[in-house]
Amino acid sequence: MEITVKRTDSPKKKPDWSKLGFGKIFTDHMFECDYDPERGWHDARIVPFHNISLSPACMVFHYAQEMFEGLKAYRTEKGDILLFRPDKNIERMNNTNERMCIPKVDPDFALEAIKTVVKVDSDWVPSLPGTSLYIRPFIIATDEFLGVHPSKTYKFVIILSPSGSYYAAGINPVKIAVEDEYVRAVRGGTGFAKVGGNYAASLIGQQKAEENGYAQVLWLDGIYHKYIDEVGAMNVFFKINGEIITPKLEGSILPGVTRRSAIELLRSEGYTVTERRISIDEVSEAHDAGKLEEMFGTGTAAVVSPVGELYWGNKKMTINNFEIGQVSAMLYEKLTSIQWGKAEDKFGWTVKI
Amino acid sequence: MEITVKRTDSPKKKPDWSKLGFGKIFTDHMFECDYDPERGWHDARIVPFHNISLSPACMVFHYAQEMFEGLKAYRTEKGDILLFRPDKNIERMNNTNERMCIPKVDPDFALEAIKTVVKVDSDWVPSLPGTSLYIRPFIIATDEFLGVHPSKTYKFVIILSPSGSYYAAGINPVKIAVEDEYVRAVRGGTGFAKVGGNYAASLIGQQKAEENGYAQVLWLDGIYHKYIDEVGAMNVFFKINGEIITPKLEGSILPGVTRRSAIELLRSEGYTVTERRISIDEVSEAHDAGKLEEMFGTGTAAVVSPVGELYWGNKKMTINNFEIGQVSAMLYEKLTSIQWGKAEDKFGWTVKI
Repeated sequence: MEITVKRTDSPKKKPDWSKLGFGKIFTDHMFECDYDPERGWHDARIVPFHNISLSPACMVFHYAQEMFEGLKAYRTEKGDILLFRPDKNIERMNNTNERMCIPKVDPDFALEAIKTVVKVDSDWVPSLPGTSLYIRPFIIATDEFLGVHPSKTYKFVIILSPSGSYYAAGINPVKIAVEDEYVRAVRGGTGFAKVGGNYAASLIGQQKAEENGYAQVLWLDGIYHKYIDEVGAMNVFFKINGEIITPKLEGSILPGVTRRSAIELLRSEGYTVTERRISIDEVSEAHDAGKLEEMFGTGTAAVVSPVGELYWGNKKMTINNFEIGQVSAMLYEKLTSIQWGKAEDKFGWTVKI
Repeated sequence: MEITVKRTDSPKKKPDWSKLGFGKIFTDHMFECDYDPERGWHDARIVPFHNISLSPACMVFHYAQEMFEGLKAYRTEKGDILLFRPDKNIERMNNTNERMCIPKVDPDFALEAIKTVVKVDSDWVPSLPGTSLYIRPFIIATDEFLGVHPSKTYKFVIILSPSGSYYAAGINPVKIAVEDEYVRAVRGGTGFAKVGGNYAASLIGQQKAEENGYAQVLWLDGIYHKYIDEVGAMNVFFKINGEIITPKLEGSILPGVTRRSAIELLRSEGYTVTERRISIDEVSEAHDAGKLEEMFGTGTAAVVSPVGELYWGNKKMTINNFEIGQVSAMLYEKLTSIQWGKAEDKFGWTVKI
């Protein structure tokens, strides 16, 4: 499908690149494409960034039939622009679509759409250390109908947001609180899919953690309230007695692209990485025995986020003296070096635009 | 808070009242009200029905921070307009808001908003038997921000849709399939709240049931995959050996206003109604023993929906010879008589507009 390009007549003033933050500033253009049963996905276009006008009866406002993805474009020292494993985001996008009864998107077309909109707004890809262009593809159900049925029409949009360094003040461990009342997702539900409902359900846990002085929530499984699912909006890893453990994907955990890359990279470095169920009790016991050597989250935003304190019930566990562990530091360094094109990409993960 | 009224200059042509269907036709006006932290809920207004224009970065499109309610206005034979227990919908609205980190709405103000918009569009309340005006209040998060945090701004909207008789061809039993793979909700999640994410997660189960020739899904609990939660978008009741049983509210079930009214009405008629866990095995065993006398769903749309066949695994259970049971019929008659003002409202459930 051809992607038409209509450039803006009034480009925005560029922001202060040293004060970008996350998800607040948007570029000059956006990608848009519509779906109906007769034409399938059609009318692919890059257009000036603009509001979406929808009937108040649109399904997305009532039944949250919506999905999204998140990835980044990185500016190399030479001035090139790299994407990191966009094929994995697009694969997950279609897995999400399947669960949500949203029509799938051709993977090659989706990649072309991402590349095209980033190319049009390439002067928005920042170059200061740690900065990047956050890419947010999403699909919303647009039928003007209140019946509880999959929509017949959809809108696929990609917006772009220049994003500041996650670790502007240097990479630092965070404090995480275990949530034992609220549940984010359960097997059979939508936890493995990147859908609004998961995030809506998680807000209250995140708010509770912040009120108690914690940066993020550690979610436990919805069945036993015992096995670790994920942390905030990241996947989670533990290093216990030399072994690196991350919860296995059983339907309630988002299959993170950074998670997968971390597993592959660690294994290539000779580490043993086990994907299995791990309970909060096991983590607590390892801590007490002095064997909980490291804990870290992985995600597109932070890449690697070391955890310095874990709070569970009335117990506060300090991990690695609230310092960045050796594995966390190595992983962060290696992954970001590939993403920003500083190191050889022996895995073939980056895609040049 | 004062509610301003701006009437449309170009009223729509009224629809064919005998072919209304559900949720496709909308009236001339809508209620709108905005929230920000400085002003709280403000600028309450009735305005002509119009599209909502939002930034593509609005939180509702990405993190589904949204809620809704559903109730009806009924035209009596004398021409009056009645609401049915709107206080219960408003109470649930605020319970949902609390779970979703959405600011609460003053109950008196919410009732006034509903009454006012229905009054302005009172000529849209149909009068043919079984027809009504469906009222859909909803709130969406409007921050233009991609961070996963509760929005700071919201929009509260009420739209109205004239609705045809659910049983245009007479009340008839439906066929229901038990879903044992997908899960709608789990305790600790959002099942008890009326939020888009629950419905988005349910679409695939509903689609699967329809493909197999069933009208609705019977959802089992997300922990044991054994206890009955609800059916499609309705609560569910069983009559086993003279006792009426409905699943108790433990966090994963929507506390339906019709469910509650059915319990109260049945008890006032001398029936024993038990709210407790009931497993699909118990239902199946009761069927085999000839003790499964009736099964029915309750909800705003259908009021009472008798179930004639239940499909579980490879087993098809016919209930009450695929005929409407005595309790279902009595309950439907009594509830609808109160709603349409045909019978004395000894419970004080109706509110005249």
